[in-house]
Amino acid sequence: MNLDSASALEARLRQIGAERYHNNHPFHALMRDGKLDKGQIQAWALNRYLYQSRIPIKDSAIMARLIDPDLRRIWSQRVIDHDGTREGQGGISRWLHLCERLGLDPAMVRAEHGILPATRFAVEAYVHFVRERPLLEAIASSLTEMFAPTIIGERTAGLLAQYDFIDEDALIYFDARLTQAPRDADFALDYVKTHADTIEKRQAVCDALLFKTDVLWAQLDALHFAYVDPKLPPSGAFVPSVSTPDT
Amino acid sequence: MNLDSASALEARLRQIGAERYHNNHPFHALMRDGKLDKGQIQAWALNRYLYQSRIPIKDSAIMARLIDPDLRRIWSQRVIDHDGTREGQGGISRWLHLCERLGLDPAMVRAEHGILPATRFAVEAYVHFVRERPLLEAIASSLTEMFAPTIIGERTAGLLAQYDFIDEDALIYFDARLTQAPRDADFALDYVKTHADTIEKRQAVCDALLFKTDVLWAQLDALHFAYVDPKLPPSGAFVPSVSTPDT
Repeated sequence: MNLDSASALEARLRQIGAERYHNNHPFHALMRDGKLDKGQIQAWALNRYLYQSRIPIKDSAIMARLIDPDLRRIWSQRVIDHDGTREGQGGISRWLHLCERLGLDPAMVRAEHGILPATRFAVEAYVHFVRERPLLEAIASSLTEMFAPTIIGERTAGLLAQYDFIDEDALIYFDARLTQAPRDADFALDYVKTHADTIEKRQAVCDALLFKTDVLWAQLDALHFAYVDPKLPPSGAFVPSVSTPDT
Repeated sequence: MNLDSASALEARLRQIGAERYHNNHPFHALMRDGKLDKGQIQAWALNRYLYQSRIPIKDSAIMARLIDPDLRRIWSQRVIDHDGTREGQGGISRWLHLCERLGLDPAMVRAEHGILPATRFAVEAYVHFVRERPLLEAIASSLTEMFAPTIIGERTAGLLAQYDFIDEDALIYFDARLTQAPRDADFALDYVKTHADTIEKRQAVCDALLFKTDVLWAQLDALHFAYVDPKLPPSGAFVPSVSTPDT
């Protein structure tokens, strides 16, 4: 596929999403289809918390590289979405609410106890990426949000239909994301289509999105390995205390 | 276990090694016992190349933080061991020799084609750790070398005995490591026993070693997941072209 125009770039980005976004991962299919037990879903929520908690850190790192106050102001909305404007608000609080409704102790989640090292390495790689790579690539790495509504839709429908320990209140995190993610993705997509004005830069944008799909994919690989098959959690990792689908 | 003395620290470090070093990982047991096929051993050598290639980078990063020329001179031996003093020498060349003897194209290995993202994330986490954490912890993270002779002995004996496509010449990398690793480990162990002069610092030293055992363990987790069980390599990862034990 060529990259000789902005629209060719967008087409290639959408192709990467279709092929590599983590809605294609077997762990997601298991979750969607009701094949996980409560302990496995707890492990997912716990590990995903680490990712959630680092999103406003990576967005702050991007803001720290933006010279233009207008851009910084727009980007700051992402941080506000996750942190809220006062305690108890924002995406991180809503993720902790999900963890609590799943039976995890929010204090233990916040303390990051039992997170898989592979989760930590993948999430840290993302934070370092946005700090160290050219700004265009740092912004491009956020483009997985283009594909978020699909996975959120599948995930929330599956979680509600398949697991009687999950109700709509537990999933309020995802409500706001259904409007936030497309707004953010539209902005970032416009940005990279405007600023990637050579084939080399468009290729770098694609590579940044591929890197980010790897970051998301590796997190599900680690969960699958530790908690589904062959179920070999490393020392120190979260050990579910429940193992049946409906307790 | 208390940490109120240097000898208590050493005992705790040895305990961490006994419990958490990657000689305890199922992938190592499979390799040692002849249960892997050539493609799986290729995948191991390829991914391990990335780790090898970053060792002199992390050691250079430590040197860049050492004020004392005496310390820097001692530490520089590690870089020389891996890079050699001219082309074709040193540990990285010897690792590429192993890859070549296993049937991999050294140019593709050097280009880092097909490396698992989880390998990359773990190795990068190690490099970032030595750059960003207190120097004492950066040095302590090298202490896995205390346990290297055991795994090297098991690995080389197993590789030679169990796989007819591997001979002593393929394994020359490990010969030098059997003297280099204990020398380096002795120095680093003396350093942390001398400089960790509070319980808090001794705890930080232990935590740095735990971090490093996680870095090594996560690499074998990723190999196991992608190439042994459930055999789900992510897109873009190395695909073995051989699959029988003796081709």
